Amino acid sequence: MSIENQFQNGIVVLGAGNVATHLSIALKKAGYAIKCVYSKTIKAAKELALQVESHYTDDINHIPADADLYIIAVKDETIQMIVENLKLVCGIVVHTAGSISIDVFKEKFQNCGVFYPLQTFSRSRKIDFGEVPICIEASNEELENKLFNLASSLSKSVFKIDSEKRKSLHLAAVFACNFSNHMYSIAHEILNQSGVSFNLIKPLIKETAQKAIDQEPLKAQTGPAVRNDENVILKHLEMLKNSSDYEKIYRFVSKSIYKLNNQEE
Amino acid sequence: MSIENQFQNGIVVLGAGNVATHLSIALKKAGYAIKCVYSKTIKAAKELALQVESHYTDDINHIPADADLYIIAVKDETIQMIVENLKLVCGIVVHTAGSISIDVFKEKFQNCGVFYPLQTFSRSRKIDFGEVPICIEASNEELENKLFNLASSLSKSVFKIDSEKRKSLHLAAVFACNFSNHMYSIAHEILNQSGVSFNLIKPLIKETAQKAIDQEPLKAQTGPAVRNDENVILKHLEMLKNSSDYEKIYRFVSKSIYKLNNQEE
Repeated sequence: MSIENQFQNGIVVLGAGNVATHLSIALKKAGYAIKCVYSKTIKAAKELALQVESHYTDDINHIPADADLYIIAVKDETIQMIVENLKLVCGIVVHTAGSISIDVFKEKFQNCGVFYPLQTFSRSRKIDFGEVPICIEASNEELENKLFNLASSLSKSVFKIDSEKRKSLHLAAVFACNFSNHMYSIAHEILNQSGVSFNLIKPLIKETAQKAIDQEPLKAQTGPAVRNDENVILKHLEMLKNSSDYEKIYRFVSKSIYKLNNQEE
Repeated sequence: MSIENQFQNGIVVLGAGNVATHLSIALKKAGYAIKCVYSKTIKAAKELALQVESHYTDDINHIPADADLYIIAVKDETIQMIVENLKLVCGIVVHTAGSISIDVFKEKFQNCGVFYPLQTFSRSRKIDFGEVPICIEASNEELENKLFNLASSLSKSVFKIDSEKRKSLHLAAVFACNFSNHMYSIAHEILNQSGVSFNLIKPLIKETAQKAIDQEPLKAQTGPAVRNDENVILKHLEMLKNSSDYEKIYRFVSKSIYKLNNQEE
């Protein structure tokens, strides 16, 4: 039986945000039928449904009960509520969140799992889903294999990761993605205030990421903090004295760089 | 007169670290003669000199006085000392440091400038110098043009940037490069402790950098901090409670993300 046939009764997507949108489009492209898109915002539900030729609803009670798979792709904090309100269904119920345990389904849905695409999604930005690592967990082995096969039909990188490990992965992703992006944002602001184009540091951003990918980031570290160049550090702190947040971040991150890089040598 | 001919009496490189090495090799490749490499460590001087077919010395008094250009590519904190100890020379004297003003030469060398390649260099890693932005400053317009032409023969991105702007650029680079790399290092450590491969988040690191390059980083922000998802944030802080440095960084960066992204909306 082909993978598509294992889900021939269709897939319901709950959510119409960044993850829901990119995932639904990738599923549709891979040949799966999206049966229904649910969002509490009817406009968002409709917009996504149009892209994947699906029904849509803003009433959780109107979600069809006979689909093979229910993907809850909403904000982490909303998952619990969706699980409580979703009626009993025959199909597999999964969520896509890094930080939420599979236990959220425990009492209500026996056939459940997690389908966590480890990437930063923005709605307007195209993503090659084939390159997105997908982390899979399921309530039993048969389901796990089913989800693994589904994920493998979307991406070349699929991993079986339990809830405990996924929590660490999510925390690591916050540092590697959200926090590094904030460092770019601060750089952007500093340059903006000095009338220097952000374009000048784009090759640096690219090379820094590529270096961390090609070698260990710890070994790739350069700059005043790792050298403990106090003159430069003090000058930088002085330049940041009008922004207590950035000054604090500069101070703590510099200290932490020096510590980490010297402890492991 | 060709650019090489403007420097036909050769170039002296002071320093044999990451920047000195990559820059010397790029200059040699572009057809310039490296006349002498100076380093206080004779082994390092010799190693670089062999690569660029140059003389070398660990005695600053043995540096030839008749070269056209002297490039001081040492640690920022050492530049002042080198300037003091270098004998008077006819050629142009420049340094390569982001954080040091051109004024460091003021009293001693009239023909001076700055030649700041804005990139993160590791000795073992190849760099395409054609893609490295070079920031130029000089004590007069004629020199500035000379340095601009020299830089343009190495790289397609050359900018005239004064010391004040260069300081901001250097500070921005510390955030965008050293600090974002530290975020990768922390992620690496978290994954290591959980037995999860760092490979899983490599596509995320790549996409995060590419997003910041293609759109503004502020608009690219995702994750729990920008959503102010307190449940997730508290869980993450709990996971970090044994590492007070990382907990602090998590707390301050999250707060700063929320503030910055909401103030500018």
